[in-house]
Amino acid sequence: MISEELRVDTSGAPIVDLTPQLRRFCAEHGDGLVQAFVPHATAALVVVELGAGSDGDLLSWLEQSVPRGASYRHQHGSPGHGADHLLPALLGCSVTVPVLSGNPQLGSWQSLALIDTNRENNLRRIRLTFIPG
Amino acid sequence: MISEELRVDTSGAPIVDLTPQLRRFCAEHGDGLVQAFVPHATAALVVVELGAGSDGDLLSWLEQSVPRGASYRHQHGSPGHGADHLLPALLGCSVTVPVLSGNPQLGSWQSLALIDTNRENNLRRIRLTFIPG
Amino acid sequence: MISEELRVDTSGAPIVDLTPQLRRFCAEHGDGLVQAFVPHATAALVVVELGAGSDGDLLSWLEQSVPRGASYRHQHGSPGHGADHLLPALLGCSVTVPVLSGNPQLGSWQSLALIDTNRENNLRRIRLTFIPG
Repeated sequence: MISEELRVDTSGAPIVDLTPQLRRFCAEHGDGLVQAFVPHATAALVVVELGAGSDGDLLSWLEQSVPRGASYRHQHGSPGHGADHLLPALLGCSVTVPVLSGNPQLGSWQSLALIDTNRENNLRRIRLTFIPG
Repeated sequence: MISEELRVDTSGAPIVDLTPQLRRFCAEHGDGLVQAFVPHATAALVVVELGAGSDGDLLSWLEQSVPRGASYRHQHGSPGHGADHLLPALLGCSVTVPVLSGNPQLGSWQSLALIDTNRENNLRRIRLTFIPG
Repeated sequence: MISEELRVDTSGAPIVDLTPQLRRFCAEHGDGLVQAFVPHATAALVVVELGAGSDGDLLSWLEQSVPRGASYRHQHGSPGHGADHLLPALLGCSVTVPVLSGNPQLGSWQSLALIDTNRENNLRRIRLTFIPG
């Protein structure tokens, strides 16, 4: 199967644009579905607009709606780690995009983004898998 | 690959039932997975019950939990547009359904629904893709 | 196609770990994508950490953010049923995981979990589908 693992450093920011890597991966293939999957329990993958404020709006929404300072049963890690564990359920840990002639069919304002508010684990793995159509 | 694009007019309502189009598309094929993908950064695709109040409940929840009147960094579009940009992250921009003998295996009360609270862009595209099993 | 339906009894708890069933199903196959789909309009499937408190944190978040005691348009079922109908939209009704050599590529702390806060319907179906890569 056509599947590879990316290594991503998230120490710079809690949202990382993976669109270039997705496009590069798909360019070698034809028509099908591409799936991105994050095998971590405190990170999420989404398709959103990046760069015009929506990414910051998403982080603000998460801070307000899934507050890091709230009391959580999960007691491992530093403060906020309990909130991080809710992200995969709320936002999802995978994204699937149709691919035509090696081009993922993202809209003009869509990007594939890794959401990683967990500041303890900065090396993240992302598996990209291509299923021919 | 078996993939086609629907054009959907959302000027009538912020939730549009796409189940008939999904069933028609799948009927031509056999066993596999069907994926619906919306290539817009201010719309979402979900599987929900429609017609017994749950669709209105979802819109109310969104209005309350992702308020259009809140302050957003994203400054394009009319008021509420910032909220629209959060929907793809929270609700998702694609749905995948197993298909047996040309029938998507939705439950009795499940429908494929486009959520489009953005009232500025009324012509939406949805890509349906079938992957044989 | 390689697809089978599980029957799951949720009378014991609102979160059921389906990871063992997922692993058993995939073990018979090679490389590909596995999809789990719940054909019910009041249940959800997610990938989360289980057993260290995050599952209880998720239920608490849902109780607070999608309160069962709130007023809903949906009037069928017992109190809280209106809230149950929002879960598939917010959390999702399917999960897709890459599979290598019969092993779903879940991370160490990831489990496939059925979320079923609806206490009226205790027999749930889950469809597992394998698409070869």
